[in-house]
Order: sequence, then C-alpha cells, then structure tokens
Amino acid sequence: MAAAVVLLSGGLDSATTLAMAVREGYRCLALSFDYGQRHRAELDAAAHLAAQLGAVSHRTLRLDLSAFGGSALTDMTIPVPAGGGTGIPATYVPARNTVFLSMALACAEVAGAADIFIGANAVDYSGYPDCRPEYLQAFEHMANLAIRAAVEGQRVRIHAPLLHLSKAEIVRTAVALGIELAQTVSCYQADAQGRACGLCDSCQLRARGFVEAGIADPTRYR
Amino acid sequence: MAAAVVLLSGGLDSATTLAMAVREGYRCLALSFDYGQRHRAELDAAAHLAAQLGAVSHRTLRLDLSAFGGSALTDMTIPVPAGGGTGIPATYVPARNTVFLSMALACAEVAGAADIFIGANAVDYSGYPDCRPEYLQAFEHMANLAIRAAVEGQRVRIHAPLLHLSKAEIVRTAVALGIELAQTVSCYQADAQGRACGLCDSCQLRARGFVEAGIADPTRYR
Repeated sequence: MAAAVVLLSGGLDSATTLAMAVREGYRCLALSFDYGQRHRAELDAAAHLAAQLGAVSHRTLRLDLSAFGGSALTDMTIPVPAGGGTGIPATYVPARNTVFLSMALACAEVAGAADIFIGANAVDYSGYPDCRPEYLQAFEHMANLAIRAAVEGQRVRIHAPLLHLSKAEIVRTAVALGIELAQTVSCYQADAQGRACGLCDSCQLRARGFVEAGIADPTRYR
Repeated sequence: MAAAVVLLSGGLDSATTLAMAVREGYRCLALSFDYGQRHRAELDAAAHLAAQLGAVSHRTLRLDLSAFGGSALTDMTIPVPAGGGTGIPATYVPARNTVFLSMALACAEVAGAADIFIGANAVDYSGYPDCRPEYLQAFEHMANLAIRAAVEGQRVRIHAPLLHLSKAEIVRTAVALGIELAQTVSCYQADAQGRACGLCDSCQLRARGFVEAGIADPTRYR
C-alpha cells in the first residue's frame, strides 16, 4: 500500500481530502503546521480528524510564518475581514501553500512517499493565487526536479481532489465519507473551543455550501 | 534601491552571492536557517558575514528539518562521508533548497522584494538535484504563480550568480569582493569554532578551488 503525505489543516476541505486519500487506499501521513495562526483550534481539530479518518500518523510542525507578518491570519493587529470582498483578501498568508507543500515534499521523500494531497479548491475559494490549477501543476513540475527520489525515477504527484468541486459538492462528499463535520474548523477566527464566527469569508463559503447541498449545517457557532 | 532576499548559509558560496548582490546595488535582506544542521558554526559565520558584507538585515529562522531525518547533515547517526563518491551523497537534505527558497519567497513578498539570491552552483557541486539550472527555472516559474505580488505584476526572479562558475572562479570573485574568507564556513562537520575537517566533499571542493585559483587557502582547519 503506497504512502501519501496529506496536508491537514483541520478544516472541512482538508478533512475531506484526507478521507478521500484513505478511501483510495493510501497509507496517509497527515501533516499540520503551527504557523502562529489565529485559529489554533484547528490544530486540535486536525489531531482529532487524523485519528477519526484513519491516518497512520499525524505530525504538527512549527513554522515561523508569523515572523514575516503581512497577513490577517498571523498578525493580530490586522483584522479578519467579513466575507464578500473582491480581489485577494487580507487573510492571504504569503507563500503559504508553497511553504506547506515544500515541507510535505521533504516529508514525502524521507517516508518514501511519491504522493502529496492538498485540499486546494479553485471554485468556491477565497481568491488565493496558490489554490489555482496552474500553480499546482508548476509546483509538481518543480518538485520532480528538486528531490533525489524523483530524479531516481519515483515521480512526485500533487493531488488536489477538491480542485474542481463546488463547496456543496465538498459537503456532500464529506457527509458520504462519514466525516464528523461538527469537528472540522474552517473559521479564520475560531475560538479556543473551535466555535466559528459565522462572518469571515471562510465561514460564509462553508455555510453557503451546506445550504446549496441541502444538508443541515452542524457547524458549532459561538 | 530595490530590496532582495539573499539566502546566506555562512559558507564561501553564499557569502560570495551576498557580496555580488550588494555590489549590484540591492538592499540585501540576509536569511539563514537553523535546521538542526551539524555544522551550526556556519550560523555564527552567517551573522558575521551579513554585517561585514553590508546586508541591511539578517534573520535566522528555525526550521524543523531534522524532524524528517534522512540526511547525514541533520541526523547525527548517519556519518558524513569523505569526499569523492559518485551519485547523490548522504549529505543531501530532502527538499532543502525548495524549503529555503519557499521561505525566502514568503519573506520577499512581505518585504516587497521581487529578487531572491541563492548560491547554488551546477559546476563544482555535490550532485544535489536542487542545484541544477532546470530546477531553479522551475522554482521561479512556480513562484510567479504562487504569490499575490507576482499575480499583481511584480515578477519574481531567482538569481543564482554562481550557477555556471567553477569553484576557482568563485574563490577569485570572493577575493576580489573583499570577503574575509577565513570567516566563511563550508565544512559539513565544522567544529564549534568553525574549523573545517578537510575531508568531507564540501571541504575538498573548496580546497581544490583555492589550488586551481592559485590563491593561498585561508581556511581554518582543525
């Protein structure tokens, strides 16, 4: 059974991605990052979900992205905007997916894994450039030139199984895979118990997904 | 004056790269990583060289690459091989340049810099895949799809000014730029004072560079 590294934030999308990877038969090594994010409750959610969904391991790496600042998610002096703006929002974290995928690549190489899963979504997303298909393709191309295992013939694949799904389709998939949706934390400013604000972009996208899927929203709001 | 992020390990190559970037007129933000490497004396060397060579700032970020293991540079149970082997050596650190460049990319975006310098070398190098021109081109392409600043028009450039120089040419350039060569630490297993072993790949490449350049080797051997 092939091993795969799965980026797991603890939100709806990454939990669904992990469940899909497990169902496809991968031995999943879940990887989370403590990067000084506001919504640290998602790290507790990630640990819970990794166990619930059958990851064979779960590791949380500390990463000093807050040292850079520049994002409402890591700089407590920048407010999280309410949903609905246009353009790339203040919650954008500089180069976040690039840093996360790079660490996943290192982890994959050491584990002898050639497959990396990420819950990026290009449909109902927040306007982040590093969630677009052309970005993910470029990362995969780079990765195959970067590491010894790839040079020696084990081709790296970046899987983003949610890339072309709507939020409603993700919700339906998550329900079908038996994910404890109340345990997933998508909110950018969840409180310490993981309860959501209901106002930020991420909350609004998620809530709309439940409405459009015709499924009662089990999110714990505060 | 444009700002540039310069990866600075504290070795001969990265010091030369920093001096070249300063000479080209960039305001240089030097970036080093404490990644659990054996040769931590290079971090002291990096701090010294950043100041000597005129970087406007120097930051050392902690990165947990040793958590992955898999390299003689970060796993104390794997011996550093003597120089002269073939293939990709045991000192290869999984995805190291990818992780370093990704962090540099985040740093550059926050600082409003579009230029990143790395001392990668494809001639007298140690056989690492992530020092090849095609790898660096692929990283640059990916970076320009990854970050907001690039999407908004400020194109990222990855500069590797040593890429096609021999070690002898790097030594001559370093001398011409006034670098305190005795303060650079290239050895993979330098002692706490930064003194070199003289035996590892990196030491042997460096020593040969001085011989071929016809310049007395000021390296502090132990």
